[in-house]
Amino acid sequence: MSILETIHSSADIKELDRDQLGQLCSELRQFEIDSIAKTGGHLASNLGTVELTLAIHRVYDTEKDRLVFDVGHQSYTHKIITGRRDAFHTLRQFGGLSGFPKPNESVNDAFIAGHASNSVSVALGMARARTLRNADYDVVALIGDGALTGGLAYEGLSDAASSGEPLVIILNDNNMSISENVGGMSRLLQALRIKPGYVNFKKWFRSISKRSRWIYDMVHRTKEWLKSRILPSNVFSEMGLYYLGPVDGHNLDQLENAIRLARDLEKPVLLHVITRKGKGCSYAEAHPDKYHGVGSFDPVSGELTASGVSFSDKVGEYLCQLAEADERISVVTAAMAGGTGTECFAAKFPERFFDIGIAEGHAVAMAAGMAKQGMVPVFAVYSSFLQRGFDMMIHDVSLQGLHVVFCVDRAGLVGSDGETHHGIFDISYLRTVPGMTVLCPASFQELHDMLTYAIQNVSGPVAIRYPRGGEGDYTDSHMSAETILRTGNDISIVCYGTMVNEALEAAELLQTQGIQAEIIKLGLVSPNAFEVTLQSMKKTGRLLAVEEVCAAGCVGSAILTAAAVSDVPVQQARLLNLGDGIIPHGTAGELRRLYGIDAAAIANTARELCAHIPEAL
Amino acid sequence: MSILETIHSSADIKELDRDQLGQLCSELRQFEIDSIAKTGGHLASNLGTVELTLAIHRVYDTEKDRLVFDVGHQSYTHKIITGRRDAFHTLRQFGGLSGFPKPNESVNDAFIAGHASNSVSVALGMARARTLRNADYDVVALIGDGALTGGLAYEGLSDAASSGEPLVIILNDNNMSISENVGGMSRLLQALRIKPGYVNFKKWFRSISKRSRWIYDMVHRTKEWLKSRILPSNVFSEMGLYYLGPVDGHNLDQLENAIRLARDLEKPVLLHVITRKGKGCSYAEAHPDKYHGVGSFDPVSGELTASGVSFSDKVGEYLCQLAEADERISVVTAAMAGGTGTECFAAKFPERFFDIGIAEGHAVAMAAGMAKQGMVPVFAVYSSFLQRGFDMMIHDVSLQGLHVVFCVDRAGLVGSDGETHHGIFDISYLRTVPGMTVLCPASFQELHDMLTYAIQNVSGPVAIRYPRGGEGDYTDSHMSAETILRTGNDISIVCYGTMVNEALEAAELLQTQGIQAEIIKLGLVSPNAFEVTLQSMKKTGRLLAVEEVCAAGCVGSAILTAAAVSDVPVQQARLLNLGDGIIPHGTAGELRRLYGIDAAAIANTARELCAHIPEAL
Repeated sequence: MSILETIHSSADIKELDRDQLGQLCSELRQFEIDSIAKTGGHLASNLGTVELTLAIHRVYDTEKDRLVFDVGHQSYTHKIITGRRDAFHTLRQFGGLSGFPKPNESVNDAFIAGHASNSVSVALGMARARTLRNADYDVVALIGDGALTGGLAYEGLSDAASSGEPLVIILNDNNMSISENVGGMSRLLQALRIKPGYVNFKKWFRSISKRSRWIYDMVHRTKEWLKSRILPSNVFSEMGLYYLGPVDGHNLDQLENAIRLARDLEKPVLLHVITRKGKGCSYAEAHPDKYHGVGSFDPVSGELTASGVSFSDKVGEYLCQLAEADERISVVTAAMAGGTGTECFAAKFPERFFDIGIAEGHAVAMAAGMAKQGMVPVFAVYSSFLQRGFDMMIHDVSLQGLHVVFCVDRAGLVGSDGETHHGIFDISYLRTVPGMTVLCPASFQELHDMLTYAIQNVSGPVAIRYPRGGEGDYTDSHMSAETILRTGNDISIVCYGTMVNEALEAAELLQTQGIQAEIIKLGLVSPNAFEVTLQSMKKTGRLLAVEEVCAAGCVGSAILTAAAVSDVPVQQARLLNLGDGIIPHGTAGELRRLYGIDAAAIANTARELCAHIPEAL
Repeated sequence: MSILETIHSSADIKELDRDQLGQLCSELRQFEIDSIAKTGGHLASNLGTVELTLAIHRVYDTEKDRLVFDVGHQSYTHKIITGRRDAFHTLRQFGGLSGFPKPNESVNDAFIAGHASNSVSVALGMARARTLRNADYDVVALIGDGALTGGLAYEGLSDAASSGEPLVIILNDNNMSISENVGGMSRLLQALRIKPGYVNFKKWFRSISKRSRWIYDMVHRTKEWLKSRILPSNVFSEMGLYYLGPVDGHNLDQLENAIRLARDLEKPVLLHVITRKGKGCSYAEAHPDKYHGVGSFDPVSGELTASGVSFSDKVGEYLCQLAEADERISVVTAAMAGGTGTECFAAKFPERFFDIGIAEGHAVAMAAGMAKQGMVPVFAVYSSFLQRGFDMMIHDVSLQGLHVVFCVDRAGLVGSDGETHHGIFDISYLRTVPGMTVLCPASFQELHDMLTYAIQNVSGPVAIRYPRGGEGDYTDSHMSAETILRTGNDISIVCYGTMVNEALEAAELLQTQGIQAEIIKLGLVSPNAFEVTLQSMKKTGRLLAVEEVCAAGCVGSAILTAAAVSDVPVQQARLLNLGDGIIPHGTAGELRRLYGIDAAAIANTARELCAHIPEAL
């Protein structure tokens, strides 16, 4: 029997001796590789934190103590050793384990995580609650160096430092966020990394001492005196955090001792740990970026299962074409060059490509500065991450009507990443930004045409939103604000983006039942007077608006408002969307079925609305 | 003739000799005190930056070079010396000068400013555009130490540092943001301030040298060697910025030399300037917090014109009452203890009060951590600044249904602060957050009852939104989701918050014209099924929804949606709100009139809708 099979909680980890722990690390890595190869998920970051996770569980009891992950895709080892090994094959599947920490799933998961840089803030809040309520538990935040580029992390560190709260912040430094790390903080960490840590310092001490005790002593004393009296040591200690490290993140003894020391200091401590992404798996170590978030793959060779062409791929391709002829175009990404398909642009136009780290707010404000001075910046970003830039879209872009292009990727349901990643709020928040033009392509060709239009013809802020994955059966291009794709007299069905495919399929179903649906595709979501739609509603008397977004602020509500204030009578109307709740993980198809926005559900609802129409007609 | 009267642009400043500049500083201070005493505005911060602004104008040409203010309420001297002296008496008045930089107002205003911490990001974007487009101008960001607590500033500094772009960031360090400065960065600046700056260093050098040249030399050489080889110097230089300073911000020679040096380095430079808020005005120097943003006052004594009791005052009072009996309550502010009325709470319950600096995102995430561990955190924040916390409201609070209470102050029109400060997007973005309860008190008593309810009875996220200023004629309390304040058969007028007063006044007007309006007050904006409203609409057939918010995502659209999907027929409907555009500064009354949401406009629109009703009826 393997050791892994004997592990059910933190307590079991604490029983193991050094050799058993070493073996457990190997078993965990193999288990994760084999499992992720089937389910897909985050590989490299989990392989890099096996020892670190075990060391944390040696020191803390995560049922009582609060371990706050940052981003949280590196929580697999934690999940496996806290009673979720047998369910691990359901990872990221509908109804199965989440790919991120989730308090509903286990008492060992202290908090939700999915967006970067929040862990220090959350942990500090927990530490303060602990102190105010006289409770007895420890709080630990585990944050990667990539997440440190986010201003939120800095806000948290700054407040934590001055709080005096006992709190351990473990910096998992692998010199990579998702892509290679960027910016001033990265430079700073590099400097810390090459400076002698405690252990290296001891070695150096010994080698110097052998040569001349006197030289060492003088230099050391002078240095320590200067350090304590005049010169600050590093940014973390300057802020008021107790800095420990750097520690080898693959040496269990060092790790366990350092974490124990950090805990026992009873102060805000930053423990700097150096890990290697992909550790113990040759292909993942060689290409940590490629094996960050993956679909299924061959566990031996690492060969990834081929996936189709995506909207992201096409955005990169079209931006390269457009930038060839237009020197004003620059591209900005927040550590997502791979995910947003803009790596090709980075390779072709390095001087016009800006990866500014996980810092969406800065990306928007920086792009606004560029636009003010005559560039046409394109910010390619995931819908759910752009939420961080909401204020900057209003304040820095919209109030001056600046021409910043937002390529809003992963709009709508994203599938297996689940609740923290679904891009279902963007229609609502983009419509709120004054002067924002919101375009929704339903095919690659429309993406091409809308991107060209957004860059060449729009003069203010403009967003193009498109989903994860590729196009469906609909591959035409209609650039108009509203297009009637199919005429009918019984009901007006309005849709946009790739939901067009569901709507057209529903229309086919309805036709077999004698109901003629008019399908109106919106190319322009906002601003839109919905003239064609209102005309159609006058004819049919019925509206069905089908959207893969939350209910509040959806386009359907805008259409109903336009109808009411234009005195267009509506006999019957239904809005099919994702409602007001929180959407779990699962494939987009499963979730559309669950929330009643797939072709069958659209047809059913339309049929109910048209109930009085005789089937024979 | 005063020197001030001869100044029309940067060029005129450059002509002056040292004595004339000194006199100009005095004249500017007196002019600002006299002027702000009448118009109200930001006093202390402008008095503190007179020399700094002149020094910037000595070195740069702001018509060509780009001077990016942060927050921008310290731009008065800049405005006065760039052709806006004669219009300065119109400051913050409807149709007059803006209290913040505004490119539409002058070519000397490079960018909009009103929310904190964006200047470095914007300036970096401008510097990059300059370099990419081969243009010839300099870029300067002017940021206060308070704004440095914002993570956005850190994101900008981090990217600027690694960019290599010629760019000067002037840190105006007065050891105060609006309230006293907090957090790790503050501590760090304090350390820098007490370290010998270049000038002090020279003095020290001389005093040591006199005693023993040899001692000085050895210590200095050792220190410099260590500094360059082993120990970092400070956080800014560690990030890769060229750090200069600290410089005395009231010494024009030192300032001008330092700025010139910074410009000529052609690198990303951080120039650290120490200023004194309120400089040259005894009462403002003594109480910089009190004289930060003021209404009118006596220019000699500094005595402020009394203002009435506000919703903010009442929030502070009620929170103190509630916290007396409930130890779970804690209060969080983002550098706005004074503005949000929570200073009394800070005084009474210091251990449960957290001023976390200008860091709204962190405030939300930190509050989420507190709530997860059993506290009931109340975040008191201005509506327009809470936009920075939009993502954290969704990700950190809503997805786990955590009980965080948002006291959303300055909701609706804020008056003279204008376009960057109007709280007109909150209804839309708060409605988007899953599970968020949104309450709108129309009177102090309702504020009391709703705050009590939010803390004691709601279990998930809850927002209470209330305007700048105090209550109107309506002083009742109705806690229900919908309350009929006045019955009528002709038209249903829906309103919430202090707009209730306009609606009730409109109803009086309408009655004199024979139209009976039913006035429905919403206490609960979301979630709300609008049953009473729909019932009323069935009776009257007409809806008029009156709101002091933007059109997208407004409550009126939610009501029309509810009506349509509930098959409630709507004969006629109009939504009166602030539309989709950008709202300028002016009094709330002037702006309500301009946008047609005051009592007269409500009555007029209602009358149009009821046109067929005979007046005699």
